[in-house]
Amino acid sequence: MQNHARYTIGLDYGSLSCRGVLVNIADGKVMEEAMMAYPHGVMDHALPDGTPLQGEWCLQHPEDYTLALETVVRELIKKSGVKKEQVTGIGVDCTVCTPLPVDEHFRPLCLDPKWASHPHAWVKMWKHHGAASQAEDINRVCHERAKKYLDWYGGRINSECMLAKVMQVLDEDRPVFDAAAAFMEMADYLTSLLVGKPAFSTSMASAKAFWGIKEGYADGEFYAALRPELRDLPKKLMEHYPDRTVARPGECVGGLCEEMAEKLGLCPGTCVSAAQMDAYTPMLGLGIAKEGKLMMVMGTSTGIMLLSREPKAVEGVTTCLPETYYPGFWGYSAGQASVGDGFQWFSENCVSAQYQQEAKERGLHIQQLLTEKAEKLGIGESGVMALDWINGNKSVLGNSRLSGAFIGISLTTRPEHLYRALLEATAFGARIVVEAFRKAGVTVEEIHACGGIAGKNPLMMQIYADVLGVPLHVSRLTQAPALGMAIYAAAAANAHESIFAAVEKMSGQDNIIYYPSKENQAKYEALYQEYALLHDYFGRGKNPVMEKLYALKNREE
Amino acid sequence: MQNHARYTIGLDYGSLSCRGVLVNIADGKVMEEAMMAYPHGVMDHALPDGTPLQGEWCLQHPEDYTLALETVVRELIKKSGVKKEQVTGIGVDCTVCTPLPVDEHFRPLCLDPKWASHPHAWVKMWKHHGAASQAEDINRVCHERAKKYLDWYGGRINSECMLAKVMQVLDEDRPVFDAAAAFMEMADYLTSLLVGKPAFSTSMASAKAFWGIKEGYADGEFYAALRPELRDLPKKLMEHYPDRTVARPGECVGGLCEEMAEKLGLCPGTCVSAAQMDAYTPMLGLGIAKEGKLMMVMGTSTGIMLLSREPKAVEGVTTCLPETYYPGFWGYSAGQASVGDGFQWFSENCVSAQYQQEAKERGLHIQQLLTEKAEKLGIGESGVMALDWINGNKSVLGNSRLSGAFIGISLTTRPEHLYRALLEATAFGARIVVEAFRKAGVTVEEIHACGGIAGKNPLMMQIYADVLGVPLHVSRLTQAPALGMAIYAAAAANAHESIFAAVEKMSGQDNIIYYPSKENQAKYEALYQEYALLHDYFGRGKNPVMEKLYALKNREE
Repeated sequence: MQNHARYTIGLDYGSLSCRGVLVNIADGKVMEEAMMAYPHGVMDHALPDGTPLQGEWCLQHPEDYTLALETVVRELIKKSGVKKEQVTGIGVDCTVCTPLPVDEHFRPLCLDPKWASHPHAWVKMWKHHGAASQAEDINRVCHERAKKYLDWYGGRINSECMLAKVMQVLDEDRPVFDAAAAFMEMADYLTSLLVGKPAFSTSMASAKAFWGIKEGYADGEFYAALRPELRDLPKKLMEHYPDRTVARPGECVGGLCEEMAEKLGLCPGTCVSAAQMDAYTPMLGLGIAKEGKLMMVMGTSTGIMLLSREPKAVEGVTTCLPETYYPGFWGYSAGQASVGDGFQWFSENCVSAQYQQEAKERGLHIQQLLTEKAEKLGIGESGVMALDWINGNKSVLGNSRLSGAFIGISLTTRPEHLYRALLEATAFGARIVVEAFRKAGVTVEEIHACGGIAGKNPLMMQIYADVLGVPLHVSRLTQAPALGMAIYAAAAANAHESIFAAVEKMSGQDNIIYYPSKENQAKYEALYQEYALLHDYFGRGKNPVMEKLYALKNREE
Repeated sequence: MQNHARYTIGLDYGSLSCRGVLVNIADGKVMEEAMMAYPHGVMDHALPDGTPLQGEWCLQHPEDYTLALETVVRELIKKSGVKKEQVTGIGVDCTVCTPLPVDEHFRPLCLDPKWASHPHAWVKMWKHHGAASQAEDINRVCHERAKKYLDWYGGRINSECMLAKVMQVLDEDRPVFDAAAAFMEMADYLTSLLVGKPAFSTSMASAKAFWGIKEGYADGEFYAALRPELRDLPKKLMEHYPDRTVARPGECVGGLCEEMAEKLGLCPGTCVSAAQMDAYTPMLGLGIAKEGKLMMVMGTSTGIMLLSREPKAVEGVTTCLPETYYPGFWGYSAGQASVGDGFQWFSENCVSAQYQQEAKERGLHIQQLLTEKAEKLGIGESGVMALDWINGNKSVLGNSRLSGAFIGISLTTRPEHLYRALLEATAFGARIVVEAFRKAGVTVEEIHACGGIAGKNPLMMQIYADVLGVPLHVSRLTQAPALGMAIYAAAAANAHESIFAAVEKMSGQDNIIYYPSKENQAKYEALYQEYALLHDYFGRGKNPVMEKLYALKNREE
């Protein structure tokens, strides 16, 4: 029997690897998965030619991305046995803001031997934090003359955005800045390669580059107030390309070009979707396409996303932007700065040798052992309460100088007590965000979780359900972002009536649902009130001790 | 050349062993030291006959004490080569309140096979904490009708006192209570054995048994208000013995009896001093005999002692009693509940496997390694502030439900940062006590430290000097308590004009002095202000979260 099914490919570029899926457009079934880790990983000590990096650099190699494109797509086709004619669409999501400078010929500047030893010529990872002082300048200028951007970006611009990163190039390596024809998001760069012409996504430009779907870029006065040399900055962004295509994720930016079709083993003309940010695509993968369903992507940090028909001011929400997920919806993004990385910090630094030995003997990861021990504790039995700001607070309080705390330590406190308190604190932190949405009149009826931690830690998920007081749907999908991108590709290829129909047909609805227990909810309510009190005491200026400790530690006078 | 020198023996009974010194009365030179660990140690799981102990029991064996008496004294004489005629005095100090019930023949009840399987027939250690509810009753009755005891005992009676421990016997094993002719402090019991007749120390009775040097015991109404059966309680304490001797430490309660002289290898009639509490004797050993010199005895917890010519109300001081150290002086006692045991808790529970491994490879104790790493940090560089109430607060706040805290944790926090914060927190805690004395008009000009930790940790001592802002004299004496008791014995034997002369001639003045650095003092002043703010916030009811966490942990509703 001949297979007449149609498929799309979604590629999800994370910090260390690219994951791809080949998906049946009729039902969203993932037919095949493939993955490739970046050969150069994160370059934080030296460039490929040995040039050392000093300070907080996080760079990547553009050829890792293009190699992964070819490798992953070819592997998907080969392993699935699908014919290339059956693949009707493809799309790419990527971390943001992950920009690279390109020359007039659309080549990454760093691949030109002339620029290879210039760190600023390379791809800057989203978490490259070298542009802190530039971010301060942007915040100042926004306060002085462009408050609307503060509304867009949750009241504060951080050093990860495109503008701060480009400013750092200007300030620190003027020749690279001058030599760059344009600075592009990696996801747009890859998409442009696919179609063989400049193709940009509305989503990333609005989330990271002070570009509005109605407003376009800021005016020259704004940029000039930052640095006189930046007056014409948009000419080094999208506007460098008069023939550009600009589209929403889920819209087609063009057909696959001959050259790339050859490389990937696909048909020329295969529909290519506008790119999307990796944090956003899981929403489609999980099938969320209406108001009231909050999504938490839980990993080293937690991303919190929610849709709304109209924009409302929500405290501490990082962005509130139109059309970023779907036409007709505003998308809120918020986040918790430390979740998985806080647990990792704890397990690497604060666990007794005895427990390390026990884990080793029993063949458990130390966090598995801690979870096993923490599971046996009743609510409140640890006697400990934590504040989860181990990497600062990037949600309601938006203050990276805040820090973590443990309160309630006694001689009988054991590592599992502290660990459980830390799990609970992240749940309380999530609840603070949910309450901020509710306070602003934004509905939260149901919570969906995905990401590495969500699937691995049932104890934590039950705690979240009990603390948040709503059913928690934990997706069994392992590739929710790539599936989401494949759905965008299907929508771009007009495989369904609308993007909403594509989500309905293709999303993964296989969830484990954690229901809150009434009894546990009541117990956690009392603890949450205590958390909220400490949250406000340390976080809202009543006792700025954490900021003072931060200043002392960092020798700021 | 014949040795005509005269000597006294001081015996210091601690929690796990007895240490003795033989001292030249002319100059206080320690001629010989000896030690014996208690064969039965602390009995917290079972009695010697196998009877299991359930709950928080800490018992000891009276024969460990009497065996140590004989063993240590004989060893001192033998090793020193001193003739027994040269020994003019002997005295015993011991932990308090460490009571045992005796029968009509002055035999410990537990040594009678009839009572051997009754836990309450055995010696209760000072840290036996089973009498918590009895302490609550005592506090209630004191508040209702005998407030003066609250003044004596720092506003709050704790479960370690004689009355609470005796009440626990009454409540839980009435036959033992009835069979006991009297309950005695171990130090008085040993002293009575030495002189062969009942001999009591004013010091322990006033510190632990509601007995005043002028007032005697409380009246029958007070005891009856606690339990009707206790109306005649004094008849089961000192007043059981009409022929008793009651004396201050440093006064002679009689000569060594024939039987004990035989056993110990000393001369009959050798002067025996009234006993003293082990926490008090170091003051003589260190040569402190006037106002303004505060003594800190630093071990698992820290005892803080100070003399005054007149009693003043000092917040959180545990006791303020007349004549407990010297005639004509009031003695203040305060304390910090967790010092060494907090560091031990930390090093056992919260240190990474990597550090444990490093300590092992380099042959260091884990606390040595932590200290080495903590030493390299500048003031404030840890970014962390701690509250040191890991075993509750027994100083100014007098609240065992308080708990420890760490504030300022980030992903770069390492165990040495937390450890240093904990060291600093105990120094800030000591400063709170010093400030309470100063606020009450009690002078503190100089601080003397002794005890296990003081000699071992120069980093910690320098931190204390910088935080407290006064020179810190750390004694090089290893047996300050036993030396102090030998000085009491010399005073009892009238070897010097007065006890003050005895202290002047015999005390050990070999100190390492840590001077505060002006620069460090200024830096710590800022941190101390932060500590004080948190101290009051969590400790004085502004945010009772610690007490709530305590109640939850202990399932109190």
